[in-house]
Amino acid sequence: VSTVNTGVVLARRPAGRVTEDCFRLVERPVPEPGPGEVVVRHLYLSVDPYLRGRMDGAFPLDEVVQVRVVGQVAASRHERWSEGDLVWGFLGWQEWSRVRPSGEAVGIEDRLWPVDPAHGPIAYAISALGMPGLTAWVGTFDLGRPEPGETVFVSAAAGAVGSLVGQFARLAGARAVGSAGSAAKVAHCVDVLGYDAAFDYRECRSVGALVEALRTTCPDGVDVYFDNVGGPTLEAALRCLNAFGRVPVCGMISRYEDPDDPGVKGLINVLAKRATMTGFSIYDHLHRLPGWLPRMAELLRSGRVVYHQETWQGIGSVPEAFVSMLAGGNVGKRVVQVGDDPTSGSTAATSSAAAGS
Amino acid sequence: VSTVNTGVVLARRPAGRVTEDCFRLVERPVPEPGPGEVVVRHLYLSVDPYLRGRMDGAFPLDEVVQVRVVGQVAASRHERWSEGDLVWGFLGWQEWSRVRPSGEAVGIEDRLWPVDPAHGPIAYAISALGMPGLTAWVGTFDLGRPEPGETVFVSAAAGAVGSLVGQFARLAGARAVGSAGSAAKVAHCVDVLGYDAAFDYRECRSVGALVEALRTTCPDGVDVYFDNVGGPTLEAALRCLNAFGRVPVCGMISRYEDPDDPGVKGLINVLAKRATMTGFSIYDHLHRLPGWLPRMAELLRSGRVVYHQETWQGIGSVPEAFVSMLAGGNVGKRVVQVGDDPTSGSTAATSSAAAGS
Repeated sequence: VSTVNTGVVLARRPAGRVTEDCFRLVERPVPEPGPGEVVVRHLYLSVDPYLRGRMDGAFPLDEVVQVRVVGQVAASRHERWSEGDLVWGFLGWQEWSRVRPSGEAVGIEDRLWPVDPAHGPIAYAISALGMPGLTAWVGTFDLGRPEPGETVFVSAAAGAVGSLVGQFARLAGARAVGSAGSAAKVAHCVDVLGYDAAFDYRECRSVGALVEALRTTCPDGVDVYFDNVGGPTLEAALRCLNAFGRVPVCGMISRYEDPDDPGVKGLINVLAKRATMTGFSIYDHLHRLPGWLPRMAELLRSGRVVYHQETWQGIGSVPEAFVSMLAGGNVGKRVVQVGDDPTSGSTAATSSAAAGS
Repeated sequence: VSTVNTGVVLARRPAGRVTEDCFRLVERPVPEPGPGEVVVRHLYLSVDPYLRGRMDGAFPLDEVVQVRVVGQVAASRHERWSEGDLVWGFLGWQEWSRVRPSGEAVGIEDRLWPVDPAHGPIAYAISALGMPGLTAWVGTFDLGRPEPGETVFVSAAAGAVGSLVGQFARLAGARAVGSAGSAAKVAHCVDVLGYDAAFDYRECRSVGALVEALRTTCPDGVDVYFDNVGGPTLEAALRCLNAFGRVPVCGMISRYEDPDDPGVKGLINVLAKRATMTGFSIYDHLHRLPGWLPRMAELLRSGRVVYHQETWQGIGSVPEAFVSMLAGGNVGKRVVQVGDDPTSGSTAATSSAAAGS
């Protein structure tokens, strides 16, 4: 076992588009647990668009970037946790963490949650069976509330969250329409994820062209727009929204790297359509995780919902994995594997293929 | 009794700002009721900002503009209504109407509602005790849901709807802050309507200046923004919104006369604040009118809520009353009196002073 704990720190704040030199690798000793502490060996690290927003201020410089991690307890001096326990938590882009687990009422950075391999691949604890999955669930069912025969449009439709939104919409009896950033993603939406229609927003050079694409793919208008991107797609969706349309706002990727916000025209549509736009954060819904997990696990196990996860290898690949994801390079959820998965009975390299298939 | 029924028709569609020559007076004979019909003598005509939006397409050319009217049944061949009944309905900018009242399930243009003078001045049936009042109620209590100690900010704060929103916010134990378009209106907000603070948005030359005014008047941030105007004020309010803020969107006056929508920047705040923006139309809530009326009447009767109504005289004054209202010339609700009020025991001229005080 290595005695070096390699981590990725925020080296400088990006000006506009994030580049790999915003990050720096640091090497520190593998920690030992003090009284009441746990040391976690990291297995899978999350790579998420929302991190970009935090790089502008929330994340401190020269500290390991805090992200969701699936790991295994390597040493414990805490009564709740034992060596070998599979866990997830908000630990960071590094190979090991020392945690002093607190009660449930305290900040998320001090918490560990158990990971049950019976629910599915353990890496899913930071994707389909974790925050991205619950985000898609809450946004679709609590805020979007699609009814049979309605049309649900989702942007970033092949992504970690969007790929589930489209499938949830169809489970609710609605028509699912997606936009994504390449022909390959559009094909993935329709062929793998079961969208009724999808289009490549990069082929649309204007808001008018986006409206045209929406009119073609959503002939009965849009009842729910699940917004992952903001900007021109939001503007076009508001124009195509039906009366009493719902717009859960989950992310605004198009805004994260653009300090010069051009604004969204046509907000009069919110009034004219008597629409409801609701921004939400899954952090406000974490308490729902235990009750939701078995249901979501069953949907995946039965094949009624599929999930595509892309697994990169090694802590050193994190900056590139993150930067290229923001540029639209991923299909589905992207994770970085930094340790052998004890549940896969295989090495990191082959377990990655299994998780990504 | 005159045999001429003077009305105001839409003569042409406005290009941008509406002008008086968009309208034309027409003279027609006073109608007679056919079988199942009622003839209504008009007493008070409504003058509302939302009409501006309909002038661009919804209202047909060369027809009398449909607005809410308080009137009295002059002749009836319908079993439900008798001569002398006080009524209100969506009749039009004219002195007389012939109506074939239908059942409750049909379009509003065929309906008459009774007006109970015991509830308050009968002109209030198209203002504080009618759609503007119910609009303020639904927007504040159903959508804004202010809690004690929260801050409610409302634009067009001295207007027909806004002047009630501020008072409703205070009834709910919240702090009320308003913006309006003149020093006189700001003084009216604070001195007459009981706002905790108010500011003149015309003194704010930029979104930044509006944000500054909001930071000064709302030191704890904005929990509810009741939007009557859209545009820069909406943008500034989103920036000052607290987490879980609510934004009922009732109107966007600033957009009605501006075909070149500059857009609203900073929609990322909807996400960052986990805010909910909801456009609504009172037409979707008309069924609540009977249950709400006695409660609202009691608030006015007891003086817990005050209402300022400005009464213009004569059908010929309608175009100017409407155009100058859109330019911000009114304080409170503006109506045009076109017949003697049988409940006031006075002529039109003196009843106007009573209603407006």
